Amino acid sequence: MYEMGVVRRNIVRADAGAVQRLSAFGSATIHEAMGRVGLMQPYMRPIYPGAHLAGTAVTVLLHPGDNWMMHVVAEQIAQGDVVVAALTADCTDGFFGDLLATSFRARGAGGLVIDAGVRDVKDLTAMGFPVWSKCVSAKGTVKATLGSVNIPVVCAGAFVNPGDVVVADDDGVVVVPAARAGAVADAAGAREANEADKRAKLAAGVLGLDMYGMREPLAKAGLRYVD
Amino acid sequence: MYEMGVVRRNIVRADAGAVQRLSAFGSATIHEAMGRVGLMQPYMRPIYPGAHLAGTAVTVLLHPGDNWMMHVVAEQIAQGDVVVAALTADCTDGFFGDLLATSFRARGAGGLVIDAGVRDVKDLTAMGFPVWSKCVSAKGTVKATLGSVNIPVVCAGAFVNPGDVVVADDDGVVVVPAARAGAVADAAGAREANEADKRAKLAAGVLGLDMYGMREPLAKAGLRYVD
Amino acid sequence: MYEMGVVRRNIVRADAGAVQRLSAFGSATIHEAMGRVGLMQPYMRPIYPGAHLAGTAVTVLLHPGDNWMMHVVAEQIAQGDVVVAALTADCTDGFFGDLLATSFRARGAGGLVIDAGVRDVKDLTAMGFPVWSKCVSAKGTVKATLGSVNIPVVCAGAFVNPGDVVVADDDGVVVVPAARAGAVADAAGAREANEADKRAKLAAGVLGLDMYGMREPLAKAGLRYVD
Amino acid sequence: MYEMGVVRRNIVRADAGAVQRLSAFGSATIHEAMGRVGLMQPYMRPIYPGAHLAGTAVTVLLHPGDNWMMHVVAEQIAQGDVVVAALTADCTDGFFGDLLATSFRARGAGGLVIDAGVRDVKDLTAMGFPVWSKCVSAKGTVKATLGSVNIPVVCAGAFVNPGDVVVADDDGVVVVPAARAGAVADAAGAREANEADKRAKLAAGVLGLDMYGMREPLAKAGLRYVD
Amino acid sequence: MYEMGVVRRNIVRADAGAVQRLSAFGSATIHEAMGRVGLMQPYMRPIYPGAHLAGTAVTVLLHPGDNWMMHVVAEQIAQGDVVVAALTADCTDGFFGDLLATSFRARGAGGLVIDAGVRDVKDLTAMGFPVWSKCVSAKGTVKATLGSVNIPVVCAGAFVNPGDVVVADDDGVVVVPAARAGAVADAAGAREANEADKRAKLAAGVLGLDMYGMREPLAKAGLRYVD
Amino acid sequence: MYEMGVVRRNIVRADAGAVQRLSAFGSATIHEAMGRVGLMQPYMRPIYPGAHLAGTAVTVLLHPGDNWMMHVVAEQIAQGDVVVAALTADCTDGFFGDLLATSFRARGAGGLVIDAGVRDVKDLTAMGFPVWSKCVSAKGTVKATLGSVNIPVVCAGAFVNPGDVVVADDDGVVVVPAARAGAVADAAGAREANEADKRAKLAAGVLGLDMYGMREPLAKAGLRYVD
Repeated sequence: MYEMGVVRRNIVRADAGAVQRLSAFGSATIHEAMGRVGLMQPYMRPIYPGAHLAGTAVTVLLHPGDNWMMHVVAEQIAQGDVVVAALTADCTDGFFGDLLATSFRARGAGGLVIDAGVRDVKDLTAMGFPVWSKCVSAKGTVKATLGSVNIPVVCAGAFVNPGDVVVADDDGVVVVPAARAGAVADAAGAREANEADKRAKLAAGVLGLDMYGMREPLAKAGLRYVD
Repeated sequence: MYEMGVVRRNIVRADAGAVQRLSAFGSATIHEAMGRVGLMQPYMRPIYPGAHLAGTAVTVLLHPGDNWMMHVVAEQIAQGDVVVAALTADCTDGFFGDLLATSFRARGAGGLVIDAGVRDVKDLTAMGFPVWSKCVSAKGTVKATLGSVNIPVVCAGAFVNPGDVVVADDDGVVVVPAARAGAVADAAGAREANEADKRAKLAAGVLGLDMYGMREPLAKAGLRYVD
Repeated sequence: MYEMGVVRRNIVRADAGAVQRLSAFGSATIHEAMGRVGLMQPYMRPIYPGAHLAGTAVTVLLHPGDNWMMHVVAEQIAQGDVVVAALTADCTDGFFGDLLATSFRARGAGGLVIDAGVRDVKDLTAMGFPVWSKCVSAKGTVKATLGSVNIPVVCAGAFVNPGDVVVADDDGVVVVPAARAGAVADAAGAREANEADKRAKLAAGVLGLDMYGMREPLAKAGLRYVD
Repeated sequence: MYEMGVVRRNIVRADAGAVQRLSAFGSATIHEAMGRVGLMQPYMRPIYPGAHLAGTAVTVLLHPGDNWMMHVVAEQIAQGDVVVAALTADCTDGFFGDLLATSFRARGAGGLVIDAGVRDVKDLTAMGFPVWSKCVSAKGTVKATLGSVNIPVVCAGAFVNPGDVVVADDDGVVVVPAARAGAVADAAGAREANEADKRAKLAAGVLGLDMYGMREPLAKAGLRYVD
Repeated sequence: MYEMGVVRRNIVRADAGAVQRLSAFGSATIHEAMGRVGLMQPYMRPIYPGAHLAGTAVTVLLHPGDNWMMHVVAEQIAQGDVVVAALTADCTDGFFGDLLATSFRARGAGGLVIDAGVRDVKDLTAMGFPVWSKCVSAKGTVKATLGSVNIPVVCAGAFVNPGDVVVADDDGVVVVPAARAGAVADAAGAREANEADKRAKLAAGVLGLDMYGMREPLAKAGLRYVD
Repeated sequence: MYEMGVVRRNIVRADAGAVQRLSAFGSATIHEAMGRVGLMQPYMRPIYPGAHLAGTAVTVLLHPGDNWMMHVVAEQIAQGDVVVAALTADCTDGFFGDLLATSFRARGAGGLVIDAGVRDVKDLTAMGFPVWSKCVSAKGTVKATLGSVNIPVVCAGAFVNPGDVVVADDDGVVVVPAARAGAVADAAGAREANEADKRAKLAAGVLGLDMYGMREPLAKAGLRYVD
């Protein structure tokens, strides 16, 4: 799957309208709307609480300890993109800091998702540049080895094609294939449509047992109440 | 120990006065007052800083990837309870979100302690609904398998009987057996009684070495000072 | 290397002026200025965001579950010191809380770096006493076994001699050998001198590819652009 | 739950016949026979492949870095017992080696289950003394702090009462409450009774889909076959 | 990417001759021949030393705690296949034991690669049925939720399409896209062709520094020798 | 501490007689003889059971993903040396395989201790070339960045000076400073002198409680026996 030393310049990004609609939902809702798939591993955490991000993926594949390709991917960023950085092997180094964030932002990036470490988190927080990463580390990297840009990658356990939609918030990072973006936005919308009603009922003390009609299937499954 | 498919409706909760008294202490003080035991593993972290919780445990045992019993336990919550959710095996899925939190709160729960993941943490934070969990994950669950409610459980390494007192804060989660709640509150109070005095002395530059009379036992143990 | 039961009273601290100059830089800059070495493991995290610390190390070697030597090290603290606590084996117990922090501060300590757990983090945060630790745990310790004070230690993977400079922030903890403090401060300053200029260029949309002259070496390494 | 500094001399051990019958089954079969509960965490591994153990638990609660109580528990061992060692907090130290194994064996112990480290594993292997542990570590411990013997403990996530049956093999460690030992042995036997028949059918190419009648429920759940 | 509740019956398997040729190489050689990509995470370990496996992937996507689809995938196995089991979220349960292994082998499977736990490892070892897994666990699973069979999956960080070649040994698991199988076999062969010669030289005391002509580039990079 | 790009050719190795004497003891005994210090982290495991190693350290500092310096260190190996490879940041790549092992052995190395991954473990096992590593991984590395040879390093949490004695076995890896090698060998010998006698007593059923005179200090510490 992985070709090394390749930069794809032309990628097909998900429909902008669908991205816009998806940006209104949380990662949990979108993941449910997709059939409970598409999530990155839960070790991917935002560098500050309340961070939110939705955009189209430009991908970069990095080797441990080497961030050379981060400069290469910068040129491929279009307005509204999210950089998704995958690694060929586990690494906790800090591949990204405030200078690269300044560059990425200038090129139009909304944020970064990286399966490794980042640094300058105080500055990134002050800039309001959202990053989801495996860890924070002051450890720098070299610029010696080629990876690739805009090839399909596996990032934190999720498969990402260039142009896919990435939505990230406090709950995690979810990837929506570009071709399904509209349909998933529809399904997410349908899912949220009656949440307000449910919330009101639950707040009034109605039990999920009754609201969802669970008592009968639970009894059938053998649930016993004892005093 | 674990019976599956059972809901105990009548549990004996710790004395309300003792719970009230215990709520004034931090988890560290209570754990010391119990003889340095009763703590859950330190991987249990609050979803927002400053969260604090004290109440009586209603317990639920869940299987990996299945939160059906969370709806069953909701019905057993009384005012001032804390839901303690244990798992039969490690799982990072998000078993709990804002809808369940709305339901739990409506039933009187003060918070949740769960040895797995939760989601909607932004909403839970906005609600001020405190949760201590192993992780945060947008990953949803199914509703297919019976666990049990209000049986004794092991949660994050701690043994919890229904009705035990749970106190949680930024330092962690401690469990006080219901029968010992009053005695532990007494011991915690005694422990804190002279802390203000100690703090003042230490702030004035008095050394613990002198205040606690450690110089002689240290010398006996063989401590040598060299220049 | 490790002598047990020894307290060295006279240590040579890094030059105060160099410490002062180093305190102006982040841990990432200093680590780069040293040749990309000297960092503790990235699992060392501040107990509150924005914490910053720079000072000279007084070291203490602790055994798992035993914080007796924390009282011994208190006496050796001079104004501007940082206590660096290493462990002879992995342990997550809470070795340090608000009383010890009160004592350490009264003796002149700027903060603590500990390869284990701490507790009372709400109080420590309120005090503004910065701590970098492996974890937070309410679990207390005993006072039964001798370790040592002001011997060379390995803390979270970094070698620390008493008197070395420790700089810590949101990105991690870096250790600068006392003898190199001035030179590292110089190198860090040189490194930051033209950062403002770089940042301005990147913010204007100039690419690192061009600013750093990377296009030719990338092409030589075999990078291919495809459409 | 945990009393410190207590040694219970008289415990009620599970029925010897039931232990004998349980010893014929693997940990996986017994765990299924109990309703899929009772297992310790999967990080508990035998120190050599093929190790097998079945016996009645004598329990010991240890503090991190301190194995004093291992000598106390030795006196409480009866023929056929298994020592189950729990910790008040995570610790990887080596609490047990060939001298203690010699002593435990002389007292009648069949093996050890410990939620921490052990050492002298080459000697233990040569002795054929089976141990399930969290890790192997040459790190020694002190003898300074009281724990307890034959109190209920949580070991590697499982609740163990003194006298309970412990069965361990390459798949892990399972705990059977003493009062249920006979019933669980019956259930395990019933479970294995038709395994030979099933194995023969599967070996002949019969599919579980057909043997277990899964095709209809899978179709009802919505499974689709596509070409 | 992930469709739930789907079984693809017709997949295009890699060329049998290429699989045969790839089976002669170790995972490390193949990974190098592919450009240092295609490996699963190193936590994937064989259940016994010396295990070796090469075959074409049939894939199955499982939910935590639920192995229902393992019976569904069994029907899709052809002679020489390797079952590759991915999970929608982290889970350590034992999804596979000796009965399923009997069934898989009867259908022609050479082995299993699973990003979760397995059990009955003593029996699997006796059968010589090789498995690479994240862990070993006696914990059983339910049969309640649909996953999918023969869809593209991410397993232990590697992307696997049905029909891809999987080669596994003591060093790990590598995945070769079906379309590249022949070319990778060629490259692996070329890589090994002169290894015997290199090994002989190194065994005779020739240094890699000289054999690979590294002295000049090292000097250029600034390497200094000091006495 | 860490100088980059430096190879020290002349190091002072520990006295050969002391190394010889130390080689007769296990890592646990030596660590006790040193005062319970000097051990690497317990995640360092031998690649095959029964591996044993004693020799003088030649050290190498590597960057993540780059094994260039392994060829540089080969030239510095003298008969009886042990190569100790430290990393500037966590990395699981396979830095070492059978070709390098052939070279190291030809130069006189007894084995390798590396705080990262290795590969070709089947070949290394067949060669009887002992390695202690953090993990096994088929993942290869590049040769692009300078580290150093024969500088002091921190390897898996232990400080190692070139020339120090390294002893490794199934229990772990211990480092003895060159200057203390003789004294530690003496202490280890004294420690083992009466082990045979102790073992015989324990095997005869004498309790450690009596043999070590623990009953009185336990009673003083407050141990209570209950029936």
